[in-house]
Amino acid sequence: MLLLNTLRNEKANVLAGLAKRQVPDAEATIDRIIALDDRRKAVQTSTDSLLAERNKLSGEIGKLMKAGKREEGNAMRDSVNAIKEEIAKGEEELDTVKTELEDLLLTLPNVPHDLVPAGVTEEDNEVFLPYNGELPTLPEGAKPHWELADEYGIFDLELGVKTTGAGFPVFTGQGARLARGLVNYFLDRNTAAGYTEFQPPLLVNEATARATGQLPDKEGQMYHINGNGDDFYLIPTAEVPLTNLYRDVILEEKDFPVKITGYTPCFRREAGSYGAHVRGLNRVHQFDKVEIVQIAHPEKSYELLDEMVAHVGKLLDELGLPFRILRLCGGDLGFTSAMTYDFEVWSAAQQRWLEVSSVSCFETFQSNRLKLRYRAEKGTELAHTLNGSALALPRIIAALLENNQTEEGVTLPEVLHGYLGMTKLQKVV
Amino acid sequence: MLLLNTLRNEKANVLAGLAKRQVPDAEATIDRIIALDDRRKAVQTSTDSLLAERNKLSGEIGKLMKAGKREEGNAMRDSVNAIKEEIAKGEEELDTVKTELEDLLLTLPNVPHDLVPAGVTEEDNEVFLPYNGELPTLPEGAKPHWELADEYGIFDLELGVKTTGAGFPVFTGQGARLARGLVNYFLDRNTAAGYTEFQPPLLVNEATARATGQLPDKEGQMYHINGNGDDFYLIPTAEVPLTNLYRDVILEEKDFPVKITGYTPCFRREAGSYGAHVRGLNRVHQFDKVEIVQIAHPEKSYELLDEMVAHVGKLLDELGLPFRILRLCGGDLGFTSAMTYDFEVWSAAQQRWLEVSSVSCFETFQSNRLKLRYRAEKGTELAHTLNGSALALPRIIAALLENNQTEEGVTLPEVLHGYLGMTKLQKVV
Repeated sequence: MLLLNTLRNEKANVLAGLAKRQVPDAEATIDRIIALDDRRKAVQTSTDSLLAERNKLSGEIGKLMKAGKREEGNAMRDSVNAIKEEIAKGEEELDTVKTELEDLLLTLPNVPHDLVPAGVTEEDNEVFLPYNGELPTLPEGAKPHWELADEYGIFDLELGVKTTGAGFPVFTGQGARLARGLVNYFLDRNTAAGYTEFQPPLLVNEATARATGQLPDKEGQMYHINGNGDDFYLIPTAEVPLTNLYRDVILEEKDFPVKITGYTPCFRREAGSYGAHVRGLNRVHQFDKVEIVQIAHPEKSYELLDEMVAHVGKLLDELGLPFRILRLCGGDLGFTSAMTYDFEVWSAAQQRWLEVSSVSCFETFQSNRLKLRYRAEKGTELAHTLNGSALALPRIIAALLENNQTEEGVTLPEVLHGYLGMTKLQKVV
Repeated sequence: MLLLNTLRNEKANVLAGLAKRQVPDAEATIDRIIALDDRRKAVQTSTDSLLAERNKLSGEIGKLMKAGKREEGNAMRDSVNAIKEEIAKGEEELDTVKTELEDLLLTLPNVPHDLVPAGVTEEDNEVFLPYNGELPTLPEGAKPHWELADEYGIFDLELGVKTTGAGFPVFTGQGARLARGLVNYFLDRNTAAGYTEFQPPLLVNEATARATGQLPDKEGQMYHINGNGDDFYLIPTAEVPLTNLYRDVILEEKDFPVKITGYTPCFRREAGSYGAHVRGLNRVHQFDKVEIVQIAHPEKSYELLDEMVAHVGKLLDELGLPFRILRLCGGDLGFTSAMTYDFEVWSAAQQRWLEVSSVSCFETFQSNRLKLRYRAEKGTELAHTLNGSALALPRIIAALLENNQTEEGVTLPEVLHGYLGMTKLQKVV
């Protein structure tokens, strides 16, 4: 949530930023917010002085009555009653104004960082770091990962249709082992880089989903548990519970940066578009992801964003996957993000780039909702939050299968050998 | 679901078995089921012959009309219409009878194995294998696991209250590492014992929950996702999706025994009773468990049950945890089980036994709902299903913390050293 002070004091900047996202009617919205805030202050002031007046008169009524001046006392009581009515009206208006103000503030996305390019769709993203190596050449008859998955017994979408529904893969045999090995590898590398491991719940309450920005605008994208009077959401990403561990927390400067990591399954209702691009693991309702989250001093957050980007790049290097890094344009930027780098790996059999990680800085947009602060010299200040996938599994598995297919099986990167107890995947049929 | 043939041919046995569970009105229910089945057959027979009669007459009407005998033809058409009405009535009754029959069958739990002792509560369970070693003696000032969890930074229930609600622990730091290490250890030991690893979806559809017996009777114990027109249940145990991988499958005899294993979080709405016994990790809404499932030839299932019991015992031995094995009495037996062994580990600081695994044989009770069969000499026969926890994490963690507390930290069993990269847990506060 944007800060009122920012809207007031840096309106031109905010408008320039929101223009990069094509936010419609941004200026009208901001003007309305400021007008509502002005009105809120005015009503608050007049209500406060009415309250003081009422208290003063109430005291005087007591004195008049004590002195036997009943008539004067009763007249004053009429005045007090009239004031009380005005106070009630004022408080009612305050409620209305605050609600409209809060609702409007929730409609505004984060202001993109200066370096974020303007743009409408993913076509307008900036290739921040192109891939400079040679793309793998596959042998004749190379197959996409969904065909390899059958031959190697990696996952089975039909089994998932039986137990659950479309888009819920069942990982089988060496596929389950591969998924587990990747999770262990990612967590071990993240903790070695100073991230503390957490295992959070997979269900969250409404306050949690609201604080990281999944509510109110992405309600239909989450699975909602509301049978039997329950009210939980299945997490779309570990970002949600991990960041919320620090809701309503006041840190000390020495605590920075907070670095945490966690593995969770992620659940997404939307399956997005249909067709060839969503075959196999390209887009599913449940998938595994290891997340990294940082909570940073505002002055250090972009330095730490670079550090996170370097860390994710190292993981992909170790896995031997060709990748490039995009800087998302305003139109493709997530609602809560000020700057996002997307990592895409090359899927050789599909001949396309597949997104495997988004690394973002949210500045104070989440911490304002989280009330996540630190003790600064003059009172408390909002911290900055960041997060990224390190890494999401399905498309990593897709790329490993496709890029490493040989006559003798799918070769595995050396960093996984110990985790899997094998050096290559073997065909099962 | 019990088989109709069993109810008809072995009624005395079935009644003796159900009496061990104190099933009320079992005989009346079975008599009603048999009467309904008789009625179903009778109505089916008469409807079938009416259908044949209608077809015959319809053919004759055609001939009469062709031969110009319109009056006779019309008279016959009246008869056919009367028959059609009778057929409609018959089919309607068939529907009613079948529904009542199915509903009644669903109310009957499995028939306990002959060796299952009669009994009402857990007090009546048989100690099948008592613990013969010496129980650990703790140092002065030994603490229960929820106090150790704070000192060692293992899990945090308050953080879970913030993100989600009561009973959703957040595992932190070396606690998250310990949980992950245990999952890896259990899966590696299970796959070494011939179980194939699967990673199933955590959401299941209604047909899946019905086939393993969670529906219709345990509906309130599962989290139900029914927002946005969805209809899924969060799995209470990996038994549900793992066993259902084999729904509507016909196996060959050579496929036996099918042995599969999987790690999943498990979700339970009911938090059961309150008080000291549910403190810490003793009873929570989300917990980790590694499950083993077998699908067996009916003649081999109890031999395989013994094998599973031995396997779970070996895991607990390797962890150095004192345990005993109970054979559950009829009254404590799960609805779908014919025989269940419970494993309980000794929790030294709480001075009580904590259940960490149930290992059960379901005979044909699940496979009848699953339509899980194998090709026998004469046609297809239902297979037997079995499952067990190997193992559930929370109380294993509780016992490890409590039993192994020393002045120098919580010592870890040797089998976990490699998984955790440490030999003991260290205090963090």
